[in-house]
Amino acid sequence: MATSTEVASHSRTNRTRTKGAESAIEARPGVTIWLTGLSGAGKSTIATTLAGRLESTGSRVEVLDGDEVRQNLSQGLGFSKIDRDLNIRRLAYVAKLLTRNGVSVITAAISPYTDTREEARRSIGNFLEIFVNAPLDTCIERDTKGLYRKAYAGVITAFTGVSDPYEPPTKPDLELHTDRESVEESVERVLALLRERGYLAGLQAA
Amino acid sequence: MATSTEVASHSRTNRTRTKGAESAIEARPGVTIWLTGLSGAGKSTIATTLAGRLESTGSRVEVLDGDEVRQNLSQGLGFSKIDRDLNIRRLAYVAKLLTRNGVSVITAAISPYTDTREEARRSIGNFLEIFVNAPLDTCIERDTKGLYRKAYAGVITAFTGVSDPYEPPTKPDLELHTDRESVEESVERVLALLRERGYLAGLQAA
Repeated sequence: MATSTEVASHSRTNRTRTKGAESAIEARPGVTIWLTGLSGAGKSTIATTLAGRLESTGSRVEVLDGDEVRQNLSQGLGFSKIDRDLNIRRLAYVAKLLTRNGVSVITAAISPYTDTREEARRSIGNFLEIFVNAPLDTCIERDTKGLYRKAYAGVITAFTGVSDPYEPPTKPDLELHTDRESVEESVERVLALLRERGYLAGLQAA
Repeated sequence: MATSTEVASHSRTNRTRTKGAESAIEARPGVTIWLTGLSGAGKSTIATTLAGRLESTGSRVEVLDGDEVRQNLSQGLGFSKIDRDLNIRRLAYVAKLLTRNGVSVITAAISPYTDTREEARRSIGNFLEIFVNAPLDTCIERDTKGLYRKAYAGVITAFTGVSDPYEPPTKPDLELHTDRESVEESVERVLALLRERGYLAGLQAA
C-alpha cells in the first residue's frame, strides 16, 4: 500500500499568517471542492463553469482535472484499486497544498472509492464532497469521450460503472442531478453551499 | 520519455486577476526558488531558514522537499535518469501551480540534470535557480543522512556525486558556497536576490 499524504514537518501551513493589512479577498480561506461521479456525469463541465464564476469574484481558482493529474503525476499507473488510490492521493496532496494557500481548488476526478475520498477530506480539512450524479444510462447516452462504447466493446477494461466499481457518496455535502438540472443550476447550488459554509462571504448571488 | 508538464487548457492562470482591492502583500507575485546541489550541500537547511524569513514578511510559503515529494508523488520510481526526471517534472508541476497562485515556493531537491531544471524554469516562469554549492568532500564529511557512507559501501547505488552524475548549473541566478558562508549569510543573499528581482518589494533587510 502507498503511504499517507502526510507532509514533512517543515512544510508550512499558512493559515495562521493572515495579516491585518490583507484584504477581505485575501482572507478568504481556501477550500477543495471535490467533484466525484461517473465518467460523463458532468464533472469537468461543472468544474469549468464554477471556476469562471469563482474567478469573477476574485478568488484564486485551480481546476485539477483527473485526466490532467494522471498525465502530470501518475504516468505508468493503471486502474487497479491500488493504482487508482495512489493517483487520488497525489491529487489530494496537490489540492491540500493549494487549499492551505488560499486557493479554491476544484477537483474533477471519478474518485470511485469512499475510503480514499474520506482520506482526502481528512488530509485537506477545508473540503466539500460534491456528488455529480447522473444515472449510468444518461452517462452512456452522452458518452462524452466515447469511452463507454470502448468499455462495452472490451477495448477498455476496468472502466468505472461498467467493469469497475463506483461507490457513491453516502453523505456528500451536496448532490447534483445533472440529468435534470442545467449546468447553471448545478453551479448555483455549489455557490450557495460555499456561501453557506463561509467560503464565499463576499459573493453575491447571480 | 515522460510527457511534458503542460496543463490542460481549462486550468486557470491567476496572474491577470489581481484586483485593486487586494493589498500589496497579496499583489506580490509568486516565485519558485529552486535549490539544486548535492546531498548534504545544505539545501534543506537553507530552505527552512529562508521559509521562516519569508513567512515573517507575510508571504505565503511552501517548502517542497525532494524526499517529501518523492514520497507523496513518486513512489515506485527509482534513480535512473528517466525516473529522476519524472520525479523532478512532478515537483515542477506542483511548484508551478503554487507559484501562479502567489506562493513563494522553495524546492530542495538534488535535481542533478541541467535539461530538467531548464524545463522547470520554462514551465514555471517566475523561477530562480540557486546552486547550493559545497565541495563533495565537505558533503561527505557532513554526511547529514549517513547516505555517503552507504553509497561508498555499495549499499546505495546510483548515488549522486558518488555513482551517479551531478551537472552543476552553468548560469545559476545565484551560487551559494555553504562551506564558507553561514546559513544566515546564504539566506541573506537569496533575500537580496528576491528583492533585486522584484519578488520582495516590501521586505526590509535584517
